[in-house]
Amino acid sequence: MKVRVVENVLKLNDEVASMNRLTLRQAGVFTLDLIGAPGCGKTALLERTLRELHGKLHMAVLVGDLTTTRDADRMVQWCDQVVQINTGKGCHLDANQIRQAMAQIDLAGLDVLIIENVGNLICPVGFDLGQDVKVGMFSVSEGDDKPAKHPYLVHEASVLLLNKTDLLPYVPFNLERFRQDIAQLNPNVPLMELSVVKGDGFDAWRQWIETKAAAARGAAAIHTQ
Amino acid sequence: MKVRVVENVLKLNDEVASMNRLTLRQAGVFTLDLIGAPGCGKTALLERTLRELHGKLHMAVLVGDLTTTRDADRMVQWCDQVVQINTGKGCHLDANQIRQAMAQIDLAGLDVLIIENVGNLICPVGFDLGQDVKVGMFSVSEGDDKPAKHPYLVHEASVLLLNKTDLLPYVPFNLERFRQDIAQLNPNVPLMELSVVKGDGFDAWRQWIETKAAAARGAAAIHTQ
Repeated sequence: MKVRVVENVLKLNDEVASMNRLTLRQAGVFTLDLIGAPGCGKTALLERTLRELHGKLHMAVLVGDLTTTRDADRMVQWCDQVVQINTGKGCHLDANQIRQAMAQIDLAGLDVLIIENVGNLICPVGFDLGQDVKVGMFSVSEGDDKPAKHPYLVHEASVLLLNKTDLLPYVPFNLERFRQDIAQLNPNVPLMELSVVKGDGFDAWRQWIETKAAAARGAAAIHTQ
Repeated sequence: MKVRVVENVLKLNDEVASMNRLTLRQAGVFTLDLIGAPGCGKTALLERTLRELHGKLHMAVLVGDLTTTRDADRMVQWCDQVVQINTGKGCHLDANQIRQAMAQIDLAGLDVLIIENVGNLICPVGFDLGQDVKVGMFSVSEGDDKPAKHPYLVHEASVLLLNKTDLLPYVPFNLERFRQDIAQLNPNVPLMELSVVKGDGFDAWRQWIETKAAAARGAAAIHTQ
């Protein structure tokens, strides 16, 4: 009984996620689902991304948290379309929450939709939201063993980020081991090492988003011809 | 239907947790459930705790992870009773996993049982395991907003730890704001600020465990008279 209910919940989630994906792709929006532990720097990454791409790309953010609007408050100065989704005790976002939040933003002319998932390395991985890609985010201060201990995220991610490289001199962290564990689990996933606070390595991330946004726009244009 | 199944699962969990608690209290064992985000330093805290209390207290550890035995491997040099519980994709430990793992350790003469929960600030909070206390662990590199964003853990915890105070000079972190958010959410919870790596503030934590272990032994002795 228990398993069947869970299967039905996941199946319903997948159906709504497919609807979200169709809507977003038809609108030419590139959508990413950002997944990382609490405090790995997801909101700081988005703040800087919104700031650096301000005036170049139209972006919107859907941000999940148990409670408070602190993350949304940090981003609104660089983005006029930020929707906070408070999940209460919920440990991940689901496709229906995204569907409801999408109704609050204007997709016309939008280039990029970023979903900042609830800070959690585990539960968000299993839920399709309708995104184009999942981005997995680690940080140096969490330790080098996190990819090995969270293989499902490494498998599912299209890009992995390692943030807080500016802390490498101050904490125990074996960068070679970190890279090797990822290469073993998912040999093809790109790894971007960066410091959001200092800006090191940020260009590669920003350019990646710009490239993806252009591709999504191009695909939608072909589709509607 | 969905809600009823979830309620039944939680009710069954609570019943098994009560059995665990009775068994552990009768054996005079002080049991804590350690909850924190991935990479906040749970395993490092336990390594140091086991080392400093080696020969003084008999301790056992049940450690939850999605996969790998890396955490258990780090602790076995200081503790002959470490059981790794691999949860697969499970985002928290439950009382039945603890019950099964307890069968693999010798409770006779044991002073302290530490349960290192899966690295996750959300899901473990809702599951009683049979512990005496939940200990919530944050770290400086996660940012000062984590108590406000995870109020359920702050409410449920009997003690809160702030680890990695040695990183305060290198990261943005408002210690006053962190303390104030906790004081608002749970005015009576003790907060211990420490650096597991450097040892600053560690004495208070070690002494707290020694005091709790003595009290659990004393309570069991009175009970069996």
